Amino acid sequence: MAAEPRSGCPINLTIELLGDQWSIVVLRDIMFGGERHYRELLNHSIEGIASNMLADRLKRLVEAGLLSKADDPSHKQKVIYSLTEPAIQLVPLMAQLGAWGRRHRPASRELSIRAQLLEEGGPKMWDAFMNELRHLHLGAARPKRSVIAELQAAYLAEVARG
Amino acid sequence: MAAEPRSGCPINLTIELLGDQWSIVVLRDIMFGGERHYRELLNHSIEGIASNMLADRLKRLVEAGLLSKADDPSHKQKVIYSLTEPAIQLVPLMAQLGAWGRRHRPASRELSIRAQLLEEGGPKMWDAFMNELRHLHLGAARPKRSVIAELQAAYLAEVARG
Repeated sequence: MAAEPRSGCPINLTIELLGDQWSIVVLRDIMFGGERHYRELLNHSIEGIASNMLADRLKRLVEAGLLSKADDPSHKQKVIYSLTEPAIQLVPLMAQLGAWGRRHRPASRELSIRAQLLEEGGPKMWDAFMNELRHLHLGAARPKRSVIAELQAAYLAEVARG
Repeated sequence: MAAEPRSGCPINLTIELLGDQWSIVVLRDIMFGGERHYRELLNHSIEGIASNMLADRLKRLVEAGLLSKADDPSHKQKVIYSLTEPAIQLVPLMAQLGAWGRRHRPASRELSIRAQLLEEGGPKMWDAFMNELRHLHLGAARPKRSVIAELQAAYLAEVARG
């Protein structure tokens, strides 16, 4: 992103920051997949992100204030990435990206069920999901509802349907 | 975009199609600004899109089924671009792009008021806006409510506030 924004339009400013082929996909893996380490993000990427691309995106997302990085106390020599509050607030945008993609693009059945649930759950579910992410990434209190568990169970049920 | 998608994930598929620096911005100008001709889109671009970039994006958006092009009966030698139904259904995504950008990016006051109204108006306003776009771009009946007029009036009032 250039130092000087192209315009002060809020849509443009979001695109200047996130309008590329990988930033949102990396944030998706951290947000929905719970991947927090470079090696996990690399090895579990269903889109097959290249190592140098992943390293570059993580660096840029940290610089942009969407991720924070810290030494992982449970894994020596490993860095753990956390979503920041602005990144957590991308949940409604993620929901709309998925809602549109499952209607208008050749999405697979197994990979669409979470998008469907997130769309049908609406703002109430997005708020619960954001609260869960604040617990997992920012140390906030654990909420009663686990949207991640709901989405994961629905995904596994779809996979089991075969 | 590659012929073969990177994955069947609906979020990824949307990003594969629209994850770049200009596609959404061009669609925004057609959707909110009512620009329908190449020359208007070029000359009115507040981000200063380059002519070859604009031509390339328009071509790709037509190929992707998000825009249709036709000879404009009121302007000889001019091509008019129309949003397709899938593009019109990007309205909720545009609303979230604007909602996030006005909170977390250095958006200008004048250019944020439409994003604010669209966010506060919620799905009801988005539906009305989509119906208006179906009238303007797809020949559907004219709805009573004009969201474009509401947004434009609010924008002009902000500009007048100076």
